[in-house]
Amino acid sequence: MKIYGDLEKRIREIGRGLYGLAGDVPSIFNKRRWMGRLMDHAMKDAEFRLNLFRYIDVLPSLKTSDLIVGLLQEYFSGLPGAPLIIRKGIDRISRGFMPVVASKMIKAGVRSIAGQFIAGEDHHDAIKVLGTLWEDGFAGSIDFLGEEVLSDKEAGQYMLRYLQLMETLAPVAAKWNHDALLENDDKGQLPRFEISFKVTSLHSQLDPVNWDGSIASAKESIRPIVATARSTKASLCFDMEQYYCKDLVIETFKQVMEEFGDYPYAGIAIQAYLKESRTDLLGLIAWARKKKRRVSVRLVKGAYHDYETVYNMQKGWPLPVFENKEDTDNNFEVLTRILIENAEFVRPVIATHNIRSISHAIALGEVSNLPNNALEFQMLHGMGEPLRRQLKKMGYRIRVYLPVGDLLPGMAYLVRRLLENTSNVSFLRGFFAENRSYDEIINPPEPKPHRTWEKLPVEFRNEPPLDFSRAENREKMREALQSEREAFGKRYPIHIDGKDIFREKEIVSLNPADLEEIVGRVSSTDRNDAEQAAAAAVKAWDSWRSTAPEDRADFLFRTAAEFRKRRFELAALEVYEVGKTWKDADGDIVEAIDYLEFYGREMIRLGRPVNLGHYPGESNSYFYEPRGICLVISPWNFPLAISTGMVAAALVSGNCVIFKPSGFSPVTGRRLVDAFKDAGLPNGVLQYLPGPGQEVGEYLVTHKAVDLIAFTGSKDVGLRLIKLAAETSEGRRNIKKVIAEMGGKNAIIIDETAELDETVKGVLESALEFQGQKCSACSRVITVGDIHDEFLGRLRSAIESLRAGLPEDPATLIGPVIDNSALKKIQNFIEVGKKEASLFFSREVDGKGFFAGPVIFVGVNPSSALAQEEIFGPVIAVIRAQDIDEAIEIANNSQYALTGGIFSRNPLNINKACQRFAVGNLYINRKITGALVGRQPFGGSGMSGVGSKAGGPDYLLQFMNPRCIAENMMRRGFAPIS
Amino acid sequence: MKIYGDLEKRIREIGRGLYGLAGDVPSIFNKRRWMGRLMDHAMKDAEFRLNLFRYIDVLPSLKTSDLIVGLLQEYFSGLPGAPLIIRKGIDRISRGFMPVVASKMIKAGVRSIAGQFIAGEDHHDAIKVLGTLWEDGFAGSIDFLGEEVLSDKEAGQYMLRYLQLMETLAPVAAKWNHDALLENDDKGQLPRFEISFKVTSLHSQLDPVNWDGSIASAKESIRPIVATARSTKASLCFDMEQYYCKDLVIETFKQVMEEFGDYPYAGIAIQAYLKESRTDLLGLIAWARKKKRRVSVRLVKGAYHDYETVYNMQKGWPLPVFENKEDTDNNFEVLTRILIENAEFVRPVIATHNIRSISHAIALGEVSNLPNNALEFQMLHGMGEPLRRQLKKMGYRIRVYLPVGDLLPGMAYLVRRLLENTSNVSFLRGFFAENRSYDEIINPPEPKPHRTWEKLPVEFRNEPPLDFSRAENREKMREALQSEREAFGKRYPIHIDGKDIFREKEIVSLNPADLEEIVGRVSSTDRNDAEQAAAAAVKAWDSWRSTAPEDRADFLFRTAAEFRKRRFELAALEVYEVGKTWKDADGDIVEAIDYLEFYGREMIRLGRPVNLGHYPGESNSYFYEPRGICLVISPWNFPLAISTGMVAAALVSGNCVIFKPSGFSPVTGRRLVDAFKDAGLPNGVLQYLPGPGQEVGEYLVTHKAVDLIAFTGSKDVGLRLIKLAAETSEGRRNIKKVIAEMGGKNAIIIDETAELDETVKGVLESALEFQGQKCSACSRVITVGDIHDEFLGRLRSAIESLRAGLPEDPATLIGPVIDNSALKKIQNFIEVGKKEASLFFSREVDGKGFFAGPVIFVGVNPSSALAQEEIFGPVIAVIRAQDIDEAIEIANNSQYALTGGIFSRNPLNINKACQRFAVGNLYINRKITGALVGRQPFGGSGMSGVGSKAGGPDYLLQFMNPRCIAENMMRRGFAPIS
Repeated sequence: MKIYGDLEKRIREIGRGLYGLAGDVPSIFNKRRWMGRLMDHAMKDAEFRLNLFRYIDVLPSLKTSDLIVGLLQEYFSGLPGAPLIIRKGIDRISRGFMPVVASKMIKAGVRSIAGQFIAGEDHHDAIKVLGTLWEDGFAGSIDFLGEEVLSDKEAGQYMLRYLQLMETLAPVAAKWNHDALLENDDKGQLPRFEISFKVTSLHSQLDPVNWDGSIASAKESIRPIVATARSTKASLCFDMEQYYCKDLVIETFKQVMEEFGDYPYAGIAIQAYLKESRTDLLGLIAWARKKKRRVSVRLVKGAYHDYETVYNMQKGWPLPVFENKEDTDNNFEVLTRILIENAEFVRPVIATHNIRSISHAIALGEVSNLPNNALEFQMLHGMGEPLRRQLKKMGYRIRVYLPVGDLLPGMAYLVRRLLENTSNVSFLRGFFAENRSYDEIINPPEPKPHRTWEKLPVEFRNEPPLDFSRAENREKMREALQSEREAFGKRYPIHIDGKDIFREKEIVSLNPADLEEIVGRVSSTDRNDAEQAAAAAVKAWDSWRSTAPEDRADFLFRTAAEFRKRRFELAALEVYEVGKTWKDADGDIVEAIDYLEFYGREMIRLGRPVNLGHYPGESNSYFYEPRGICLVISPWNFPLAISTGMVAAALVSGNCVIFKPSGFSPVTGRRLVDAFKDAGLPNGVLQYLPGPGQEVGEYLVTHKAVDLIAFTGSKDVGLRLIKLAAETSEGRRNIKKVIAEMGGKNAIIIDETAELDETVKGVLESALEFQGQKCSACSRVITVGDIHDEFLGRLRSAIESLRAGLPEDPATLIGPVIDNSALKKIQNFIEVGKKEASLFFSREVDGKGFFAGPVIFVGVNPSSALAQEEIFGPVIAVIRAQDIDEAIEIANNSQYALTGGIFSRNPLNINKACQRFAVGNLYINRKITGALVGRQPFGGSGMSGVGSKAGGPDYLLQFMNPRCIAENMMRRGFAPIS
Repeated sequence: MKIYGDLEKRIREIGRGLYGLAGDVPSIFNKRRWMGRLMDHAMKDAEFRLNLFRYIDVLPSLKTSDLIVGLLQEYFSGLPGAPLIIRKGIDRISRGFMPVVASKMIKAGVRSIAGQFIAGEDHHDAIKVLGTLWEDGFAGSIDFLGEEVLSDKEAGQYMLRYLQLMETLAPVAAKWNHDALLENDDKGQLPRFEISFKVTSLHSQLDPVNWDGSIASAKESIRPIVATARSTKASLCFDMEQYYCKDLVIETFKQVMEEFGDYPYAGIAIQAYLKESRTDLLGLIAWARKKKRRVSVRLVKGAYHDYETVYNMQKGWPLPVFENKEDTDNNFEVLTRILIENAEFVRPVIATHNIRSISHAIALGEVSNLPNNALEFQMLHGMGEPLRRQLKKMGYRIRVYLPVGDLLPGMAYLVRRLLENTSNVSFLRGFFAENRSYDEIINPPEPKPHRTWEKLPVEFRNEPPLDFSRAENREKMREALQSEREAFGKRYPIHIDGKDIFREKEIVSLNPADLEEIVGRVSSTDRNDAEQAAAAAVKAWDSWRSTAPEDRADFLFRTAAEFRKRRFELAALEVYEVGKTWKDADGDIVEAIDYLEFYGREMIRLGRPVNLGHYPGESNSYFYEPRGICLVISPWNFPLAISTGMVAAALVSGNCVIFKPSGFSPVTGRRLVDAFKDAGLPNGVLQYLPGPGQEVGEYLVTHKAVDLIAFTGSKDVGLRLIKLAAETSEGRRNIKKVIAEMGGKNAIIIDETAELDETVKGVLESALEFQGQKCSACSRVITVGDIHDEFLGRLRSAIESLRAGLPEDPATLIGPVIDNSALKKIQNFIEVGKKEASLFFSREVDGKGFFAGPVIFVGVNPSSALAQEEIFGPVIAVIRAQDIDEAIEIANNSQYALTGGIFSRNPLNINKACQRFAVGNLYINRKITGALVGRQPFGGSGMSGVGSKAGGPDYLLQFMNPRCIAENMMRRGFAPIS
């Protein structure tokens, strides 16, 4: 790297010139205006800021004046911290006027805030604004604000708007006056206008897990845009959004550009807040150098810092963004330098309002002898006008980024801008609102030592799922799928008292997506085996119960390590054995690991006796002891996770286990036992007993050696086991404990204030992932008010866009159901539904396995079979409710009470759901499946289950008996007095 | 009070003379001797001190060399803090010699320690020691060390020893040389010897609850002693022990002395550590003044400080002793002054080794112009010899307190002395072992500000039981018994939806001790009432479940206050309705209050949602919700406590309750409902539904409105309810939860190292209190090794001494059983026992009610009916075991697993019991009944119960369903990041 003498000095000189221009304070920072006062208070009061932005966010979707005024009060009453003037203002608006008038005033207010940042509503506005700017000596880049694209239809509309804009704009732009600075850089001519677009908005199913397929789809949508840009003489910028798709966007950019070798005006954004941005930029330069072409690189800081932090921390993935703004600012300078030093291959576009960053780029350009017009600066519409005028005066080309769109889809953008401007690391806030000193602003950013939060977990942390945006993970998964395929047809033994035993009778495990494939043949047990298993468990118990809780926990931790070693292999197996997609299969392994790590820690916590009552002369020790022999009967739909959860809980709390897997997933079940074996679990502590339910399962339920039964499965089987277990016969020494998790008929309520992007996605995932074969799956949707049609329209298009096929194909989102009887049951319910309700949508899906297409019924009677029976398939029953109270009543009208959800931005409705929506797991504004161990302990009441929640703080208690030892510490009148 | 000038100056002069005499260090403080080194280390290491004294304590009862050596290792291995020389010594003794030799050495060592403090073994020794002392110029007072007196037989033996001593000693003493100082005080002649005795050792059943009866019994035993003292010319001192009997002893002293108006040589001890001692002393002086007589008052500091602290803190009673030694020393001076100023009526006897206290008394005597011989000093045998010689030289009369007895009964005394001498507030320790400076020793004691630990409880503390040593409590109880008797025959209504309703059919509640007495007539319900009750509960639930946990808890606290207001009335009712003694009845009220206070606090704790998993952008709230309608079916044996516990738990966790009391205690049940009503519980939240089990109870168990059943009662009924509840019929919306506490067949193991005083008392109380009608009661005793006969001998005599009769008489310890079928069942089992085993003891008890006398069977086969079936009466089955392992095996050979106990001073055996004695509540060296809420959470497994322990941290969880609300906090990519 070159060393420039006195660069800092020059930066300060340039900066001083820009710093002096602060006079023209933007209205959002102008405290003499109401908007400024609002923002000022938002900057001081985090709760007010949150509520303000949430209110602004929900506003455009509110269809009635009552709602607008009502929510105003909901969001802002009970904020005593707000200054009087704001409280009075809110009060005056909401009480002083008729709702119609008040809501108009509120909307006008928000529109005027939006007007600060959004350049217009449609392409007409865009053309107008671009022309005006051009006259003033500024170029522009149009960005159509897009709502989240959930279907191919929506993606198509988004693309069309760009094509339309370019076609309409080209003849207009041709008539603009000539402007040398705007139309040329150091290497030649530049187009008169630019469009910016998001690759992820051009296709609804882009996901790096399906790398090649996603790129192919994206390219298809982008080609017309590039072709049109070429023909209408527009430049292009590939915008950058979430980190998760970053590599996919860069790769797509390269591939598209290779197809359009003759189009020189393409560019791509690079986000300086990403730790990988330097590598990405160098890769891009190397590619351009190799391809002998030049592309624009728009260097931005990055606008999704909060999102990336939250999303990646929740996943347990390393933070891709710098945690500190200083680091990002520093990296921005590093990248600026790379751009300037490689200006032969990249056209440097510096997109920032930060005076230091700008001054740095200019100074660096000067010392590198780069002509002024080789640098382009970009700024956002409505921000930093004085700055851009001054830069223009200094002879630099400025392009204004012009967001165009309706308030509704634009709201995400608006809120992002407001957040940014009121963030306490915002340059503009510091500059305009806080009048930071010149030194503070111009000093070079100092990188901070990194916090390594991800290295902490002694406490429990969820196992991070596989990041399929990483090529190595996709590669390993493909290899695992291959090797599992090679093991098809293998024979698997049962396991009793540490011995693997083969039996003649076998359970044949088929691939539900392709019935010609036999995943494995597992030995099947009978009563005789059950007797042996029980005897082995009893024999092993005395020593196992006396094993220290910490040591028992250690077996779980070691088994977790075994699972980690073979996580690809296990996921691949599930893809074949139960028909899970890559991510779903991985999710099951992750959850299994979580149970092991969580219950292990729980047992260590619960294994410590508690001393009760601090009285002298006595010691009261309260602790837990195992119950004895636990029969685990587990389902196929989470073949590793649920089995592991029950087995691990029983084992770690000191019970010996007889594990009977589902007949649909015996191979996965066997792998669980292998892992425990490899972790060194003593003989007899865990037996593996696949076999027929009645002959082996029920026999053991009534067996006198069995002390408790942990069951997850259907309601009918569960109820039968509970009844059998309660019949205490002669010779039994205790009353059997049954921990049963059963079905669900789970509802999601959607009210008028729901954010539809999230809602459609949430319902779709909740209802259709794994074909709805989750006890937590959504099978009822209850809409409140008039959101019904709009929601269903978007949901239908979204479902139409889902790819169906073999689960081993990473493009697949719709796979098979588990077996023929499941398929028949689903088909029967569809027939029932056709009589009881109106078929709104159905989709045929074919294949060599048990495929059932998604179905939506509307106008469903809340008491009909369709709304009452668990179908366990991709069937959605939509019910309309007048208001939230009726919606909750409908939701609660079920024998089940497992999961439920509400999508709403109305605090009152959310609160009502919290109070009265009677389910074990209630989810607010997110999908209702995918409960995480330790974070969303899982389980319900009613006919959904008896027992405490899996993955929660009370779960292990069920596997143990509490004991109390009271010792009189006083002898001969003396006692240790502490 | 008189003011004496320069008193302090004179105290210092006198003290200086005494202080100079420290040369002759007693062996226990002499570090050049092994005993001194041992004590020195004990003073430095609290754990070593505890183990040393515990070993010394158990030693005399060890019958084999192996045990002596084995326990030495048990107690002292694993004390790494002990200095090498001690560890080596122990190691050398226990490994270097044959056990027989080693145990002889150990015994000799302990005997030599004991010899420091104990003057001899019998009256021959006593006479010898007295003679020698007299020759040296000292008087003596003989105290026969008594083991705890558990029976009239033992009390009689204790009395006889004194009579024998006096008779034998008198002629010998007559021949002693004349000694003017010893034989005269300022008022006249004194006897040549004195005896000291404990009033509580002269009768086995002294208890202030039975005030008049106890005094009468005590007087009977004391009369011969006083008469003999008078005839043999001995002086007498009434020793003072536990505070609980203090008033009783003083009153007995006065009454006896009034009978013996011509006997001038009686005295009584006053303990300066008691806060009440000043009042007591003034009362005694007033009495003597009035009776125109003079008595000795032996002023001591008090030797049971640890005991009083522990005992009273455990009871929740105010501390009767000063917490700080300084306060006691100060009070000693206050009392000394009172004695000296009232020397006309009291003969001041100053019993202390403390130089400051002695000097203060002498100086005060001087300034009061009291002749030297008006003061007497007393010191303990083996302590402070140099001091007493010096005092004699100064012309003061010294009497040496001479404990006489075997090592075994003497051990309590020895340990007390060792404790005292090694206590860090001990004067002797400070003087001899720590060489405190003269100033430290002679400065006046400074009273310290009092800690008021008893005022703290925001946290839960058990309600203190009534202190029946207080006259006002006895008086109130008598009044309550009277007024309850006046309410006999009253009619009581049922309670549904806030309304009291009378029904024609009635349950007649009889006094089981006198069948002619009808305690009350309670309306009886039928199915129709059950329906109404269920409907009322359902109706009230919606509002009750939404009542905040804190507010629900508040109803419990208010109900507790109602119980406190009427605690005498409730206790009196139970005396009549179920036949409890005063203390047992009070215990039931206390426990009811405890449940209310404890569960209220528990609900406040559990009512706070817990936030799980600290990830940004999501909020996971974990909390508990009520299950619905709870049916409470409760027993009669703890008619208030158990009912209140179940009702309170159900209510406070947000369930509505239908409470069905036992048909034997419906009046008490009704009072419970009254208290809740008076506390303002809303209508419909609690219904009171007495009625026939099958028609009302079982009907409601299967009723679809009932969500959970809390049951305490017999195994057969419990199993039936569990089975009924598990049969899920059409229309039910959940699986009923049953919380069942059932029977027990509880065993106490007694090994060779058991301390028999405590053991006999513990077994007696565990097995026979309330006639064994407690599910926790002991019905099996398992003896290990050869303790069998000695234990049974003492147990038999103890049982023979128990008074049987009407429970309303506070003298009664054996009352009736609840009804005729209970009586029949007990009688049948006695017949069975006579065939299966040997009848060791039985006692007939008569009365107008259902009286069954206590029975002991020996040679019981562990598998026989007598050892397997719950009898619920005063029948004890004694089983012999070879060793602890067999004992535990026998104990565990039961379908029940509720309570169990072990009496042992062998750490290894205690540890084995902790590990393997499979019961819900294990008790070490104490009775196995009387579990306290919050301290010994109660409940078992096996056929003893399903569910978590009552009064423990998990109990309320059973009445609730856990819920989790997960909220996605991120909207438009922004989230509150904390």
